[in-house]
Amino acid sequence: MKIARLRYPSPDGPEVRIVVEALGHPGRWVDVRTTARRAFERRGATAGAALQLACTLVPGSLSRALENGEAFLEALAQAAADTSGETLAAEGGQFVAPIDPSLYRDFLSFEVHFTNAARLNNHGVSPVLYEIPIGYMGNALSFIGPDEEVPWPFYAQERMDYELELGIVIARGGRDIQPERAREHILGLTILNDFSARDIQLREMQGRLGPSKGKHFCNAVGPVIVTLDELPAGGLQMSARVNGEVWSSGNSGSMLWSLEELVAWASAGEPLPAGALLGSGTVGFGCGMELQKYPQPGDLIELEVEGIGVLRNRLGQRPAQGWLPSPKTPTIQV
Amino acid sequence: MKIARLRYPSPDGPEVRIVVEALGHPGRWVDVRTTARRAFERRGATAGAALQLACTLVPGSLSRALENGEAFLEALAQAAADTSGETLAAEGGQFVAPIDPSLYRDFLSFEVHFTNAARLNNHGVSPVLYEIPIGYMGNALSFIGPDEEVPWPFYAQERMDYELELGIVIARGGRDIQPERAREHILGLTILNDFSARDIQLREMQGRLGPSKGKHFCNAVGPVIVTLDELPAGGLQMSARVNGEVWSSGNSGSMLWSLEELVAWASAGEPLPAGALLGSGTVGFGCGMELQKYPQPGDLIELEVEGIGVLRNRLGQRPAQGWLPSPKTPTIQV
Repeated sequence: MKIARLRYPSPDGPEVRIVVEALGHPGRWVDVRTTARRAFERRGATAGAALQLACTLVPGSLSRALENGEAFLEALAQAAADTSGETLAAEGGQFVAPIDPSLYRDFLSFEVHFTNAARLNNHGVSPVLYEIPIGYMGNALSFIGPDEEVPWPFYAQERMDYELELGIVIARGGRDIQPERAREHILGLTILNDFSARDIQLREMQGRLGPSKGKHFCNAVGPVIVTLDELPAGGLQMSARVNGEVWSSGNSGSMLWSLEELVAWASAGEPLPAGALLGSGTVGFGCGMELQKYPQPGDLIELEVEGIGVLRNRLGQRPAQGWLPSPKTPTIQV
Repeated sequence: MKIARLRYPSPDGPEVRIVVEALGHPGRWVDVRTTARRAFERRGATAGAALQLACTLVPGSLSRALENGEAFLEALAQAAADTSGETLAAEGGQFVAPIDPSLYRDFLSFEVHFTNAARLNNHGVSPVLYEIPIGYMGNALSFIGPDEEVPWPFYAQERMDYELELGIVIARGGRDIQPERAREHILGLTILNDFSARDIQLREMQGRLGPSKGKHFCNAVGPVIVTLDELPAGGLQMSARVNGEVWSSGNSGSMLWSLEELVAWASAGEPLPAGALLGSGTVGFGCGMELQKYPQPGDLIELEVEGIGVLRNRLGQRPAQGWLPSPKTPTIQV
């Protein structure tokens, strides 16, 4: 199944609809709320009540919809199976971020990437990177979708970067999920661009609490979420282009940790909610830092992943400088 | 103003109500939804419609309520001013976490704490800690309230720890908030216990992406949120007791960064939503690590902050071991 979201104008401003591709009909998108509304009507609900039920079961937010559990997942499957052509998504919709995550955590799964980063930044590779999946929590509210412009944060200087990653969308929440059950918790995969402002990222990481301002300003996801059964097993080809020129290419088959291990570890000892997004980490040579060259304001970044599609985003312009803290004077010598 | 949340039994399971202390009547809690419902009725709404409006304006979740903006903040102020005694919270409510955060970020604001940590863990103190507020994003879903038991995660070994912190609750969301406007964005302060599993925390931090499993399993907040106008200026006394014995004491006046600077930096280049919680970081000597002793399963941890109250939580028991990843073999030498 392929799942996406389309944006339409409405009297209340932009309205977002969850859609699925009709099985066996590539490119034909079915509106999940419309399918659910009609199903409620067929079961005797009045038109008004059916609409209200369908709006609650299939809101515009995919993460909120996934909170509805199996009832929503069944509505998704029913919509994908509706090949009648009567519940097609309206014309003129624009693809937006397929997931508005309830939580976002990014991992370091590609050995080539983290060993490249260590060599380029003159630090060692800790054994812990081979012992447990290492990750950090990002800002789940900083997501944009296909064709949206990347906001260049005022505190970023020269080195703005893309990161070519897989995004794992969680369908069913859980805690202490076992790896052998982890696939049941995955809705599917999407393309993730973990934009990174390298100057401030490397500076703040000296404080030992991980990346923060260097990462939290923007992530892009899309264009669609593809369920695992529709993707080739054994690894997906991944590539990145800047203004049409191929900068990066790799394969997800080189991940150190399986999707199942990442889901299990993300849920160990803490809640992993429905609608969460987990990043695989950057594929080897999947960012400008590893190539020692960086995209510039206005550049078009395209990430392509086999079986999922192409995620395009243009970098915005540098804004005027904003407020920066005044440095404090140390009073304690260690 | 003092803001809290009380839990009651209901036919649908536990129901949580937002309450405020009646001005000039310490210990008298007013139910904000009831006050709002009566106000809608006085303005001509039918009883059913007034209830529905009040439930939407004042849901059980404080972070969702704060999404309603000034309309909810006015309802809070009206409830605090209702000293009629007619809208008092029902008897028998239990205090729960006053905020269920929409986002949680913890900072390092106390120089004594971070220099102690550096000395004890044999690493340097980076100059960046004096240049910008350094923090990490936690799991906003891992919060407990007063008197709730701390779940001991299966992957934690010996060194379970408390951290004595202030929590800053955001009333009005924003992006690129200027420090001179930051106070308008603060609802008030609460007590925050950032429980920490030191063994895994120090191990995973070798991976350079900050703390994760060592922190994400549990935070406690409460018992109430106090607005800044009701707190003494210039610093609050803070202390921690383990089984009644004072382990830590400090003062928030020693923060390196002001509340305004923390709010401004948290919102720089990224959304800081209504209902977010910012942690001040641990006050100097405000955790067991700095004292080289650790609480044990079943111990009672009490954090007290002047003007806010006491937050009590008991540590749970160690559970059976859960799934841990199998280590991978490095294939690349750096």
